[in-house]
Amino acid sequence: MPLFNRVALIGVGLIGGSLGLEAKQRGLFGHVVASGRRRDTLESALKMKSADEVTTDIAQCARGADLVMMAVPVAAMEQVARKISESVEEKTVVTDVGSVKGETVKKIEDALPYPSRYVPGHPVAGSEKFGPQAATTGLFEGKRCILTPTDSTDKQALSKVRQMWEGVGMTVTEMDPFRHDRLLAVTSHLPHIVAYALMEALMQVRETDPEVTNFTAGGLQDFTRIAASSPDMWRDIFMLNSSNLNEIVDRFIQCLHDLKNKAMSKDEKGLWESLEQSRRLKNVLG
Amino acid sequence: MPLFNRVALIGVGLIGGSLGLEAKQRGLFGHVVASGRRRDTLESALKMKSADEVTTDIAQCARGADLVMMAVPVAAMEQVARKISESVEEKTVVTDVGSVKGETVKKIEDALPYPSRYVPGHPVAGSEKFGPQAATTGLFEGKRCILTPTDSTDKQALSKVRQMWEGVGMTVTEMDPFRHDRLLAVTSHLPHIVAYALMEALMQVRETDPEVTNFTAGGLQDFTRIAASSPDMWRDIFMLNSSNLNEIVDRFIQCLHDLKNKAMSKDEKGLWESLEQSRRLKNVLG
Repeated sequence: MPLFNRVALIGVGLIGGSLGLEAKQRGLFGHVVASGRRRDTLESALKMKSADEVTTDIAQCARGADLVMMAVPVAAMEQVARKISESVEEKTVVTDVGSVKGETVKKIEDALPYPSRYVPGHPVAGSEKFGPQAATTGLFEGKRCILTPTDSTDKQALSKVRQMWEGVGMTVTEMDPFRHDRLLAVTSHLPHIVAYALMEALMQVRETDPEVTNFTAGGLQDFTRIAASSPDMWRDIFMLNSSNLNEIVDRFIQCLHDLKNKAMSKDEKGLWESLEQSRRLKNVLG
Repeated sequence: MPLFNRVALIGVGLIGGSLGLEAKQRGLFGHVVASGRRRDTLESALKMKSADEVTTDIAQCARGADLVMMAVPVAAMEQVARKISESVEEKTVVTDVGSVKGETVKKIEDALPYPSRYVPGHPVAGSEKFGPQAATTGLFEGKRCILTPTDSTDKQALSKVRQMWEGVGMTVTEMDPFRHDRLLAVTSHLPHIVAYALMEALMQVRETDPEVTNFTAGGLQDFTRIAASSPDMWRDIFMLNSSNLNEIVDRFIQCLHDLKNKAMSKDEKGLWESLEQSRRLKNVLG
């Protein structure tokens, strides 16, 4: 018997589409009804076998569902929660995949008629690819999923959402929603804003010296890949977590100034020690 | 017949070791005598078949050579040039693999008895691996090599060094030494100092919150890899190209501030446009 018989999948991008595909294949989801704004992305989701049925009506999609999975850019979550509020029942477990929790979790709880049945989640499984065609099996395998229940979250709903993510191969951790945002600002949001800023600087140089992009080395290509991630998703993340991001960006700029000053002042020993210490961190991070 | 019968390979790290191995296999080098400071790295080079003979005496190594390849960290280049100056002959072609050219090229020319026979070079083929054990075939294939001849560089010597790098699969470009440093500051040195600074910021957060390193996502792992590069090599690069680096780091920080401010002030449209523009740059860079 499936973990959830009837699933409403709101949003069929990389995460939503991949989950629909994988959870159906593994027998965790029975019947999947997908919803999205655009007909063509919904058609793609049908073709990719991420969903069995599609509709552009979000409220209709959620009707009778055992699980509503909200897999839209995080700034759209609250609005989606409002739309499904008319059709979700007390039996319905609601969850999401938003990359920012904190205040957003509170707003979603406020928008839903049965807030205790909402389990905030964040599968930390990304890729620079996006859209329904990017849906793939194996995306979640061995990755970490962070669930951020609040004081009001129902234990049975939490347990079922945990089983779902474990069922597609993830290691599930629980954490306070605000702590989630502080940690992810450092480990995920900072690297992304830095990669985008580096591309911006490169583009500025390219305006006066078009040849610059012919001499890209190994390091730069990694940044290029990171900065090719979905602009919709990252705009939302940067805006919704701007206060934590601001703090860590300032700290990072301080570190960058420090390294640069060591180089400018020919502090050979100090510079080497900083670089060596950073190199060693790789062993910790694996 | 080999392109160079007798080759003195000063330094058997990733680049020197890989070149010795590959150029011997392809018949470009006849007999390779390698030199380095430490016995154990020289023994490794023999085992890896990067060299046929080894010595810790640099001047002795260069004696009778048709090519002297200086493959040491860039800050050591001038000193190596002084050491070989007593044994190089007019027939000897001298070249290097330093990642910074500009002033360093001038200093090397000044140190050599036949400066016209020196061809400054920079194979843009790196890896975060380093040391003699990292030597591998295929490292140069399809990558770009920048030669930075000066007004005094001998055309025949230049042509032979070009043939050597083309012989191991590289595409060779010629460029002014100072222009090289300005371009590489943007495309290579900036991404590296940024990756090191990000690791530094992460380490600082980790001091008060050790759990932070458990939640690393895709983006961060790329930075970790870049920041695991040789601290000796990068200390030299950052110090010797500090003025160009300073300029591009400041521009980058400006871009980062700009993105952050757009996020803080909820400039949804402006932020999206910046991110989308950076994403598109991937298509240009390939």
